Amino acid sequence: MSELQRVTVLAGGVGGARFTRGLLAHLEDAYPDGTGGSRVAVTVVVNTGDDMTLNGLRVCPDLDTVMYTLGGGISEEQGWGRDDESRRVSGEIAAYGRGWDWFTLGDLDLGTHIVRTELLRDGATLSEATEYLCRRWKPAARLLPMSDQPVETQVRVGEAVDEHPAGALIHFEEWWVRYRAHVPATEFVQRGLEQATAAPGVIEAILDADVVILPPSNPVVSVGTILNVPGIRDAVRQTAAHVVGVSPIIGGAAVRGMADACLTVIGVETSAQGVGLHYGARRTKSAGLIDGWLVDETDADAVPHLAEAGIRARAVPLWMRDVPATARMAADALELAFE
Amino acid sequence: MSELQRVTVLAGGVGGARFTRGLLAHLEDAYPDGTGGSRVAVTVVVNTGDDMTLNGLRVCPDLDTVMYTLGGGISEEQGWGRDDESRRVSGEIAAYGRGWDWFTLGDLDLGTHIVRTELLRDGATLSEATEYLCRRWKPAARLLPMSDQPVETQVRVGEAVDEHPAGALIHFEEWWVRYRAHVPATEFVQRGLEQATAAPGVIEAILDADVVILPPSNPVVSVGTILNVPGIRDAVRQTAAHVVGVSPIIGGAAVRGMADACLTVIGVETSAQGVGLHYGARRTKSAGLIDGWLVDETDADAVPHLAEAGIRARAVPLWMRDVPATARMAADALELAFE
Repeated sequence: MSELQRVTVLAGGVGGARFTRGLLAHLEDAYPDGTGGSRVAVTVVVNTGDDMTLNGLRVCPDLDTVMYTLGGGISEEQGWGRDDESRRVSGEIAAYGRGWDWFTLGDLDLGTHIVRTELLRDGATLSEATEYLCRRWKPAARLLPMSDQPVETQVRVGEAVDEHPAGALIHFEEWWVRYRAHVPATEFVQRGLEQATAAPGVIEAILDADVVILPPSNPVVSVGTILNVPGIRDAVRQTAAHVVGVSPIIGGAAVRGMADACLTVIGVETSAQGVGLHYGARRTKSAGLIDGWLVDETDADAVPHLAEAGIRARAVPLWMRDVPATARMAADALELAFE
Repeated sequence: MSELQRVTVLAGGVGGARFTRGLLAHLEDAYPDGTGGSRVAVTVVVNTGDDMTLNGLRVCPDLDTVMYTLGGGISEEQGWGRDDESRRVSGEIAAYGRGWDWFTLGDLDLGTHIVRTELLRDGATLSEATEYLCRRWKPAARLLPMSDQPVETQVRVGEAVDEHPAGALIHFEEWWVRYRAHVPATEFVQRGLEQATAAPGVIEAILDADVVILPPSNPVVSVGTILNVPGIRDAVRQTAAHVVGVSPIIGGAAVRGMADACLTVIGVETSAQGVGLHYGARRTKSAGLIDGWLVDETDADAVPHLAEAGIRARAVPLWMRDVPATARMAADALELAFE
């Protein structure tokens, strides 16, 4: 294969962040730049549909998870938020009757939100604010929000819950964190999507890449939301890059999180095969998005079915146990891309 | 004397807060309401000239000091800020290169600023936000900001310091906290004062009081700033209340803080007598502000000189060592009012 130069990942939170960390570890090994890094340029386009304004502060869960994970500040145990975290400020906000009992901001994390909010209020775009914050964390990849315009993923609840009547639209994070996705949902709505444009550099990062990777992020509300930003899905379809995905479903269950609940809402089977077919094969009549699809070894049965649909699939171990295991997954994904 | 019903205090930060706490303790003793409180209604009009926007958050140092002191949350050792405080968020903000090394926001204190900022952004006035915050702290007095419009006390520095050229205007808190008032100042400027009006209830609280007290707060940048809000000085001159002050200067030095540096800038002698004469006698040609003036026993010599100028003065112990000692001072001030 020709020398790999540019890889672009479309990521949500924990899954995308951990995958990218493994990818960077692999690239540092396989394509070293001689100074401890890699000569392959990695761009991560991050979902911002989960962003919220909490107590006047702009919170970007996925951008922060990716930034902290690649910057060495993540709580490994949680997968999100900061290591060695405390919640003193949140306790105060609650004492004033202004917090949410289902969403607590950590003190260290709040530092990020305060600085971001200040930058945005001073006129910075989210891209600029993200770049500023990354100067501290120095991730070995370029982080781009999918859009500089606010896009908010909302969930229409199928039955009344707490203060919400049946049919109400609630913020995705409320459905996800407060209700653990246990309240029936009838649809996802992405508010602001029509007016949104891809952030500067996003379309180019997809079109100019050698490989575009859909990591094991939530295919509906993470990767799906990114793809719905005007221009991004078409760029993935049109890029000369090889596009490969990594299944977030192993043996019929989400590796982490509650992706199954999201897949059910949009009528996609919770299986490695189901998600692969949902993305669909590129360069076919169905105008899908992927050339290749990695499934777990326990889902090897799906490989021939995916092949039939025009998707090059391969079964390898997909558990992101640690960085070396994840680096091997990333290496497998790249190999599949150039197969 | 007739039954005391309403007392209004014009307060800055630490000195005014501690004095008011002593006043409330005295009133609970001397005018009990039968439920542990006092039947005397106390209003504190608080200086907001030191307010700042730090990292996008609205900080009101004097309002918070009074609220925490009367609400039982103050750091006794510092006199300002919260007890059992930590500085984790500030450490993060500094790590992003956005803090001030001379002004650190405590984590608990930040909860207040975040909630206040959210309320203000949602359209509340500072009076409304203050009332909201006080619902938690339940001070036994009504706290009113001097104005709902921002007024900012600035200091013109007489010589170049750090990034500021000679003649530059800097925020009062920068001069006070960063430079400990050691940089020569040539004047105080209160930006926004002409457009400001007294907050709802302030003028009434002065006009309808039985006693108005100028506590041992900074006479220049705390009490002086309040008096400069259009309408307030006239209300103090015109009220039927007895107006008494408590000297913030003992034996030629500020009891606390650096009031001497402020007095020097406006050409007032740093002495109990100097400050008393600076406020001036009411109901005389000089159209001053006070009927009575408490000085410390070590400044007893000043009493006849003040009397000559038409100011009823008395020398009593003025150190606010603890709440009982401060309660006695407050009792002395009230006694002087009705003498």
